[in-house]
Order: sequence, then C-alpha cells, then structure tokens
Amino acid sequence: MRLAVIGAGAVGRSVVDLAAEYGHEVVAVADSSTAVVADGSDGRNDGVDPEAVVTRKAEAGIVGDDDPADALAADYDVLVEATPTTLDDAEPGFSHVTTALERDRHAVLANKGPVAERFGDLQAAVADSAGEIRFEATVGGAIPAVSTVEDIEPGHVTAVRGVLNGTANFILTRMAAEGLGYDHVLAEAQDLGVAEADPSFDVDGTDAALKCVILANVLSFGAADDPADAREFTLDDASVEGIRDVPGSALRLAAEDGRTVRLIGEATGETVRVAPRLVPENGTLAVSGTQNIVQIETTHAGRLNISGRGAGGPETASAVLGDVGRLE
Amino acid sequence: MRLAVIGAGAVGRSVVDLAAEYGHEVVAVADSSTAVVADGSDGRNDGVDPEAVVTRKAEAGIVGDDDPADALAADYDVLVEATPTTLDDAEPGFSHVTTALERDRHAVLANKGPVAERFGDLQAAVADSAGEIRFEATVGGAIPAVSTVEDIEPGHVTAVRGVLNGTANFILTRMAAEGLGYDHVLAEAQDLGVAEADPSFDVDGTDAALKCVILANVLSFGAADDPADAREFTLDDASVEGIRDVPGSALRLAAEDGRTVRLIGEATGETVRVAPRLVPENGTLAVSGTQNIVQIETTHAGRLNISGRGAGGPETASAVLGDVGRLE
Repeated sequence: MRLAVIGAGAVGRSVVDLAAEYGHEVVAVADSSTAVVADGSDGRNDGVDPEAVVTRKAEAGIVGDDDPADALAADYDVLVEATPTTLDDAEPGFSHVTTALERDRHAVLANKGPVAERFGDLQAAVADSAGEIRFEATVGGAIPAVSTVEDIEPGHVTAVRGVLNGTANFILTRMAAEGLGYDHVLAEAQDLGVAEADPSFDVDGTDAALKCVILANVLSFGAADDPADAREFTLDDASVEGIRDVPGSALRLAAEDGRTVRLIGEATGETVRVAPRLVPENGTLAVSGTQNIVQIETTHAGRLNISGRGAGGPETASAVLGDVGRLE
Repeated sequence: MRLAVIGAGAVGRSVVDLAAEYGHEVVAVADSSTAVVADGSDGRNDGVDPEAVVTRKAEAGIVGDDDPADALAADYDVLVEATPTTLDDAEPGFSHVTTALERDRHAVLANKGPVAERFGDLQAAVADSAGEIRFEATVGGAIPAVSTVEDIEPGHVTAVRGVLNGTANFILTRMAAEGLGYDHVLAEAQDLGVAEADPSFDVDGTDAALKCVILANVLSFGAADDPADAREFTLDDASVEGIRDVPGSALRLAAEDGRTVRLIGEATGETVRVAPRLVPENGTLAVSGTQNIVQIETTHAGRLNISGRGAGGPETASAVLGDVGRLE
C-alpha cells in the first residue's frame, strides 16, 4: 500500500522507517509546517527516501519543501494520522482523516483524539466512503487490543480493563520498589524520558482515559444492531482519577497485605473509569515499569490477558503497519 | 455462514450450541457413526435444532439417523473439523478437510492432527480451492495465538513459546503448591476431569508439542517467499520431554530460589522443543492451574504475552466461531 504519513514525531518517523519492511511504500510525509511528496506525479520518483526524510527532520527540523496540504492531496492508498492527540474537536487530526475518506482512501490512526472525541462523526464519514478506518495504535501500543476485541466480537466482550499508561505505571512501580515519594520518582522518570516535562496527560489519567473511551466506543458501536442507536463516548463521559495523590504510605500499607497500587482503566459498553486501584502484588494486573496490560472479559472464553510494550516509536509503528496490512 | 460440524465431542457440541449466537447456522452434524442433516434439501428445515442434537447425543449417544457421509456432502459454507486428533496421516480428519476444499468450501479445524502432521498437503489443497482453512482453535483454546502471529506477520515473529497444556500445568502447579508427588496429583487431576484416564497425550508433552509444531509451520510458511520452499514441520521434528519425571524435590529446590517448574513449549521457524523448565515463581510464564500462556517475540514490538483459558468446550468453540467470522 502507498502511505501518506501525517505527523513526523516518534511514531510518524518510525512508520516512515519501517514501512518498506512491511511491504509498503511511503509517498508523502508531513509535519506541522512542511511536507515531502513523491507519489509519481510530476515525474518524481515513486516513494520518499525514508532515511533522508528522517535525517532531514532530525537535522533541520523539517521534512521537505512542500506544504502539508500537498501531502493530504497526494496519490496514496492509506493516510496515517500520527499528529499529536488533541481533545474536543480533535483538530487538525479529524479533518486529515475525513479528507482521506472523502477521497475514498483509507485512514489509520495513531492519534487518539478523533477516535475518542468524535467516534460518531468518524463512523458517519466512513459510511459515506469507500475507505475504512483502523486505530489499533491508539490503544496499548504494540498490544493488539482493538483487533482482539473485534475478533472476539464486541457483543461477546463484557469489559476491557488494564494498565494503559506506561508513564504512570513506571512511577507507581518505582515508588513501590524503592519506597520513594511521587515527586522524586517523577523527576527520575523525566530524566529517563519516560515522563514529559509536563506529565499531566499521563499522571492525571487523561491518556489512559482516552484509551478507555476508545474501547468503550468499540464495545458500544460493535454490539449495536444499528450504529445510529449506539451510545457514543467522549472523554467527558469518563470518571478519571490520576496518581498525583497516591502517597508512598499507601504503597507500603498495600505491600504488607501482598498488594500494590496500579492506575487501572476500565471500559464497558456503559461506563468508563480510570483510577488507582489495589491489585495483588504478583497478580496479572501488576505489570512493572512501562509495560501495559489489557484484560478482556468474554462471555464464552473467560478472561484474556494481553501484556506488552504500550508505547514507543517502533512499537506503535508496528501497530499502525499491522492495521495497514489488515486493509489489504 | 452455514456450518457442517464434524465431531460431536465437547468442542463439536459447544459449536452446535453457540453457533446461532455468533450469527451462524448449523446445517449438519456428524459423530463417528451417525449424522443429522438439515440443509434445506429434501424440503427439510434449514438448520438443525441445536438443543435437540446435543440432547440426543447425551441421551442416546448418536446425533441423528443419517450417515456421516451425508454431512460431508451437505450444502454448507464451512466445515468444522472437531474429530479427535490423530497423528501421522491425520485421518479421518485430513480427508474431511480436503473433501470440503475439493467442493470449494472452507474448513475450520479444532483437530490438531492435519495442521501439525500434514501442513504442506493442506496448503496444496487450499491452493487448488476457492475455500480457505483456519485453525485458531488448535493452539491455546481461547487464546488468539495463531491470528495474533498472523497479524504481526510471521516474518516479524522470531519465536513463540508458552504453557500450552492445561493438564500438565495443573499438575505442576499443584505439586508445587502442596508439596505432593506426581502420582498423587495426577490422581487428583483425573478425579477433577482435568486429566484423562490415559493422560499420556498431555503429561508426555505430545499435546503441547503438536501445538508448537503448528506454530512452527505458521512461522515457517508465513515467512517464506514461496510456500513451496518453506520447511514443513511434523511431530517427528519436535524434541519432546514431558513431566512424568519431575520430582517433587525439584520443585522444592526451585522454590527456595524463587523459581518453579513449568512445561514450556517453544517454536521458531527452525526448531520445536517441549520440556519442563525453571521459570521465575511470580513471572509471566508461571501461569497457574489449567491456564495457558503464549509469549510472542517480535522484531519491532518486543514481547507480547497472551494468557487465558487454553481448553474447554465453549472456550474452544469461541475460537472456532471466531475463525468462521474471519472467513466472511
């Protein structure tokens, strides 16, 4: 498939880097202000030079000499939406996706915004298009959460829960392991690049909540006989509590009882909730460090647990490219 | 889809029982000596009465008044092969599958025999047919092992390993937990119905080995540019050691070191090996009781762990019906 990669952050760059290995060709790349297009028009070679693009971005901060609009207008099969997650109207990511669908192309999202905040609008745009959307990369990084739920069929899944944010999990793991306070461990996480300078998206539970909202939409729309009747979820529907107020003492007390604390998100077709919870210390949900785990409750097959790397350029890119493969 | 269910053991009966819930219709059921066919020919109603079939089997030991050949000749979309696993020529299961393919129908297998022992022959039959085969239910019960490897793409998977036999795992778990010997725990497992009267298939590692052989075939054929060049695996290629000779003392010694023993199977595109191994007591591979776990090593996404119920009528039937859904 021919890919237009919109967004040149860690995920976008990894998609550009790995696409050929998955048998796909990148014909356009855009960052927030520039683009490079090589889709065969204008006699230019078919396909960008992945290494050159990534290098230019690293050294010069831009991907090319064209305008981002040129990437959106290029001759591609699949648009990869990898721009930063935005809330509410989820722009500009939402419009990138609808532009592709209006042109009867497919869109694969790593950007959570449109899927969490405007799922109904996306479904409507897909209904009017020959193109499809997929969004495995929006939930759980390398963990095939969305496709596994789709395979089991949302009507046969009663709940999905898990540890969905590696930053928050790393902090809680370190607090428990070392008996250190939140501020100390947050600083350590920032030094390691596991937490951002402004960590609120992760530590306040917003990132985990967006992923749970996406899962709730998948369950709700997937189980509905008529999508028009399905309940749509947005971030506003989620009950969210982060980890800022988890004291070291809570972890010590928990440990005396063979338990620990993890930021657990849970989605059903009815509710979305993120909060720190006590879990058995050596239990399935007590994954360590930046690992994620998704636990799927099914009607006929009991509980399925899938754990793995929840984030990272190559990890998320493999989820994006897996989605591209499913579109073929 | 219209299903012909060949085999009326626990899995076949569960498929008959659950098919309607997944949106499918059972038009024929066969056990080893009888069949019931209701495919709309002869003016008979389209679709068997699932409850009546299961009840008749339970009470009278037969499913109907027709001959099994009638089920194979019925008007179905998908043949579900759920007869007992047989080795070497994998008959009669292998011929049930090729009969379906020769009629340009699909086949979904829960029977490991044809997939483990005659993978190459199956691929050849599929190549000459408009039908496809799927076999999720042959590995790991409810765990979507095969489809996850397919999604990641076999070329991007370096190894698959795990605990793939619930009977052996139950025995080792109980030996470790209670400090009891193998014979005592085996008797307990047989009382509970977790182990069969002749448990050798499970405790000698044969069942786990067949599943690893299937995974090795998926990796080998999936990664090959030309399936004709792919290395084919059979049970004879597997190095297999079971749990009969694991003494209670080994488990006690292991526990002192924070470890335990599990029967681990591993498949790469080159080797298949099953043996008892020391694993960290609270680690990912140390699943308990009859649980299974599949660990997938990937090139770009690190390690994925999927755990859940590895066996059972409804669990395995959900894997079969999931495969039917993928064929649509």
